[in-house]
Amino acid sequence: MSCQKRSKVLSFFTDFFTYETTKSVVVKSWSVGIINRIVQLLIIVYFIGWVFLHEKAYQNIDTGIESAVMTKVKGFGLYNNQVMDVADYVVPTQGASVFCIITKLIVSENQTQSFCAESSKKFECVSDSDCSSLSVLENGILTGKCVEGPRGEKRCEIRGWCPAEDDTINTVSPMKEAENFTIFIKNSIRFPMFNVTRGNFPSNIDEKYIKTCKYDPVHNPSCPIFRVGDILKYTNESFNTIASTGGEIGINVGWVCDLDQSEEECKPSYSFTRLDDVFQDNKVSKGYNFRFAKYFRSPDGTEYRTLHKAFAIRFDILVSGKAGKFNAVPTVINVVAAFTSVGLGTVLCDLILLNFLKGAEQYKAKKFEEVRKRSPGHMTTVVQSLESGALAVMTMDTECCLVTAGDHCSHL
Amino acid sequence: MSCQKRSKVLSFFTDFFTYETTKSVVVKSWSVGIINRIVQLLIIVYFIGWVFLHEKAYQNIDTGIESAVMTKVKGFGLYNNQVMDVADYVVPTQGASVFCIITKLIVSENQTQSFCAESSKKFECVSDSDCSSLSVLENGILTGKCVEGPRGEKRCEIRGWCPAEDDTINTVSPMKEAENFTIFIKNSIRFPMFNVTRGNFPSNIDEKYIKTCKYDPVHNPSCPIFRVGDILKYTNESFNTIASTGGEIGINVGWVCDLDQSEEECKPSYSFTRLDDVFQDNKVSKGYNFRFAKYFRSPDGTEYRTLHKAFAIRFDILVSGKAGKFNAVPTVINVVAAFTSVGLGTVLCDLILLNFLKGAEQYKAKKFEEVRKRSPGHMTTVVQSLESGALAVMTMDTECCLVTAGDHCSHL
Amino acid sequence: MSCQKRSKVLSFFTDFFTYETTKSVVVKSWSVGIINRIVQLLIIVYFIGWVFLHEKAYQNIDTGIESAVMTKVKGFGLYNNQVMDVADYVVPTQGASVFCIITKLIVSENQTQSFCAESSKKFECVSDSDCSSLSVLENGILTGKCVEGPRGEKRCEIRGWCPAEDDTINTVSPMKEAENFTIFIKNSIRFPMFNVTRGNFPSNIDEKYIKTCKYDPVHNPSCPIFRVGDILKYTNESFNTIASTGGEIGINVGWVCDLDQSEEECKPSYSFTRLDDVFQDNKVSKGYNFRFAKYFRSPDGTEYRTLHKAFAIRFDILVSGKAGKFNAVPTVINVVAAFTSVGLGTVLCDLILLNFLKGAEQYKAKKFEEVRKRSPGHMTTVVQSLESGALAVMTMDTECCLVTAGDHCSHL
Repeated sequence: MSCQKRSKVLSFFTDFFTYETTKSVVVKSWSVGIINRIVQLLIIVYFIGWVFLHEKAYQNIDTGIESAVMTKVKGFGLYNNQVMDVADYVVPTQGASVFCIITKLIVSENQTQSFCAESSKKFECVSDSDCSSLSVLENGILTGKCVEGPRGEKRCEIRGWCPAEDDTINTVSPMKEAENFTIFIKNSIRFPMFNVTRGNFPSNIDEKYIKTCKYDPVHNPSCPIFRVGDILKYTNESFNTIASTGGEIGINVGWVCDLDQSEEECKPSYSFTRLDDVFQDNKVSKGYNFRFAKYFRSPDGTEYRTLHKAFAIRFDILVSGKAGKFNAVPTVINVVAAFTSVGLGTVLCDLILLNFLKGAEQYKAKKFEEVRKRSPGHMTTVVQSLESGALAVMTMDTECCLVTAGDHCSHL
Repeated sequence: MSCQKRSKVLSFFTDFFTYETTKSVVVKSWSVGIINRIVQLLIIVYFIGWVFLHEKAYQNIDTGIESAVMTKVKGFGLYNNQVMDVADYVVPTQGASVFCIITKLIVSENQTQSFCAESSKKFECVSDSDCSSLSVLENGILTGKCVEGPRGEKRCEIRGWCPAEDDTINTVSPMKEAENFTIFIKNSIRFPMFNVTRGNFPSNIDEKYIKTCKYDPVHNPSCPIFRVGDILKYTNESFNTIASTGGEIGINVGWVCDLDQSEEECKPSYSFTRLDDVFQDNKVSKGYNFRFAKYFRSPDGTEYRTLHKAFAIRFDILVSGKAGKFNAVPTVINVVAAFTSVGLGTVLCDLILLNFLKGAEQYKAKKFEEVRKRSPGHMTTVVQSLESGALAVMTMDTECCLVTAGDHCSHL
Repeated sequence: MSCQKRSKVLSFFTDFFTYETTKSVVVKSWSVGIINRIVQLLIIVYFIGWVFLHEKAYQNIDTGIESAVMTKVKGFGLYNNQVMDVADYVVPTQGASVFCIITKLIVSENQTQSFCAESSKKFECVSDSDCSSLSVLENGILTGKCVEGPRGEKRCEIRGWCPAEDDTINTVSPMKEAENFTIFIKNSIRFPMFNVTRGNFPSNIDEKYIKTCKYDPVHNPSCPIFRVGDILKYTNESFNTIASTGGEIGINVGWVCDLDQSEEECKPSYSFTRLDDVFQDNKVSKGYNFRFAKYFRSPDGTEYRTLHKAFAIRFDILVSGKAGKFNAVPTVINVVAAFTSVGLGTVLCDLILLNFLKGAEQYKAKKFEEVRKRSPGHMTTVVQSLESGALAVMTMDTECCLVTAGDHCSHL
């Protein structure tokens, strides 16, 4: 292979392995120099202080928290001359993350399928004709008849579970012992990205402590036992009001974990809100209540039931959380972003340098280098034909020139 | 301190406070100039139109919506000559976000723990030997005997709750009144990032209106009361089919809020889907049903139960949402991204300028400035020893030259 | 309009449609050239291999999976000489995504509201005075009296549901048949962004197969029927332990779908964890149990109940997932990011070129072009007054020079 041939082969490589970098203009000016460094300093401070230290942009973040909640309520109430225990007042009974503590009950006993008078005043009537036009239903299907109720008053007749429930008796008082009931929350979570599992109380917790402690944000922030009255206090609700109308309380268990530190530091924080707060000013549908029935059979086989209209405090344990741990990928991405952003300071400085500084023209001349084509045949516009037969032509450079014979452009 | 010393100190500062900016080549060419501006215009339009106006990139987005749902079903059904009310046909009774409306019941009354014949044809037998090889169980544990059933037919015997349920009787018709039942949904949400709480109906809503309205996407989009029949119509399901096989309906409450506008504008939109749609074509496991029992005691203390196989429409209230509000951080980040991207238009224009334009060579010469080392001892490759004792050498510049005595490279 | 006027108008356009590009320095050096290309290659490999192929950055990602779960447990147990079926041992009965299989029961029969002796040793007493100081409650409200219990022992008296439950009898064994119970999971999901709906088993699945198959990660990964014993095996738990103390098992259904491929390929994968694992080492509150009651009426109308302390395995079906599909927007964004990042290789190479390479000074001279003002009146600092009346001045260039009459700066 001759030198020339080899030269061609090598030529490809040398062309490929050249290095291209931007040509820079260095401006020795105190004013722009200082502005430039201050802008760069601000950007660096922003990235280090906010992006890296505060937002922890060097971490991978896992927000897909997996959570399992178990709850256990304790306490005894006295209601209607009966002692109520957990099996009586907690629904559903399984100790899930959503449960209700019944605080007030309107009980309609011994209901059977038959015909009877409605209970509320809305169904007052004199004759059957008053009952045929009603479109509202309350305790059963209207038969259209007007009959005498249990207290002698005339009411429209219904078919359904009789006697009809009378929930207008608001004299029933709530079970005031509920204020002292305690809720034990067992919450285990997992961050699947890092395979870290944590419980809401330490595994080495003292047996005696956990059996007697009560949660308090200042003195006992890691005690998993919450007094109902305390929870209501934290949400600024009065126990008496919520116990008689019912309501929904949210117990937020928030996990914010920095797994670059010890896993032991990954602890939950609790907060409490009244979830149905937004409907408090509404005139309709205040509070929280539901109906359920217990079914019985009499010895002759006929079914009867006890209907309960239950006013309850519903507790929703809402678990949320995120964990972060150092990872090379987001670190590199953000370091790159920081470098790029530092470079952006130039945009501002260029603006100052080229427009507002003494000697701007001098800088402009140095920074910008023009390329223009000088052949008048290219990119020119004939503006005027002069009498001399020559053309007045405008070039791309927006100069007016006179084109005579030849290509030379002589300025007008 | 002498002038030289001071000079050194100052030298450090002047070096530090210099300003470095790229040197630019300004090309006065209509074609590249126009392409450049069009590309920049497209990028700016994209950023303003899509990124800022459509995607609202100037906002902080909160997708961690906190939600509490309360539901209340109303309506009376007639089933098996009995009036069914909410306590009878809604399970679970607490009015949570997931609940079932029972539309069909297969009731097996008076079951006690004993021995009896199986009910279905699968368990047909002639002698005990037919029953010993069966591996499927349905209503109890097989004893291996072949006994006579209640209607005189021969069936394998089971131990369990007797008499065995016979759910093959498909003559039971669903409770058709369920189509007119109404579901009242009370949904309060919170965007924790902005601490904004909203309810799914306005707090100043008219009491009369809310008691009589029915949701309609066109005329009553903010009424929180939904008729079961309407919901099924929106999902294109026939009530009769779903009521007899059971099914799952999803009610999506979607909150998309722009909190830069009035909070009053933050309203939910409802949509409805059949959740088990994907299994409709399956031959197995169509619809939705479950079994539950009511337990009774006879006066002599023996326990008996009524088993219900319930076909139900299950409703899942699924709340999702996101809210956005102006924030400086994402605004700055996206403005920076926009500026950087505008600069990227250069990549395309350089390509055109340096390759496809008339006078590309001229532009190239202006844009690129070469640095090369001229000392032949550096970066050269001896290619051939010439007879004359000189070396044919290839330099980095891929020129062939003849090196004789001295460093001078004379072209071959 | 004269040529000059037109020239002015056109001047605006030509100024606007000029194209500005950076001036580059091309360095023909093998070392920097190779380093530059290697760095660029690494960045390109990273973007193509990791960002595009592995992380699928060209896709829109939907993580807002909508899910509906239906479960059905099958199997019969023998417990306390009774056959237990689904209606007996599954709570709640509706087949939702969270349900419990009761494996052990402590039954307290025929409880009525009255007064009786406590059951546990904690309430041992000799006289009434021993009972007045107790602060713990277990089965009812303490009356303060000391009475004789059913087995002749002295215990404090309570008011409540009597006789009191005695859950210290740990001789009750769990229902061992539960190991062979099967759980059928029907999970339908939807990715709202792409409107793709999928079920956890194919719609064309064989009826016989689905009725007999058992899930197995290797041989039957798409069978939706899970044996309780197998699930416990996958979580490395012993059935006997968990059945007698209770526990929480999570069944994760993970959907990771690449919708650029056939939708048929979008299948779930199952994984199993013990959710309350983290509390296993705790001495308190091991396992999972809850109390529920069945209420009865005697013929004379007095209510009595059977209290059950149920130890159960709670199953949580946790559905998570994400789907990706090609979309132009993220593709463009990441291609732009890739281009920008390739450019960042220059930072590293500049560092090498200007500092560590032979001939660095030469490169520096070519890369950087200085702009400085030469008028000594500007940016100078008078350092010393010399006796001769001249001033020693330091210019921005940190040169010391002697300013005499006139503006000429002669070096000291």
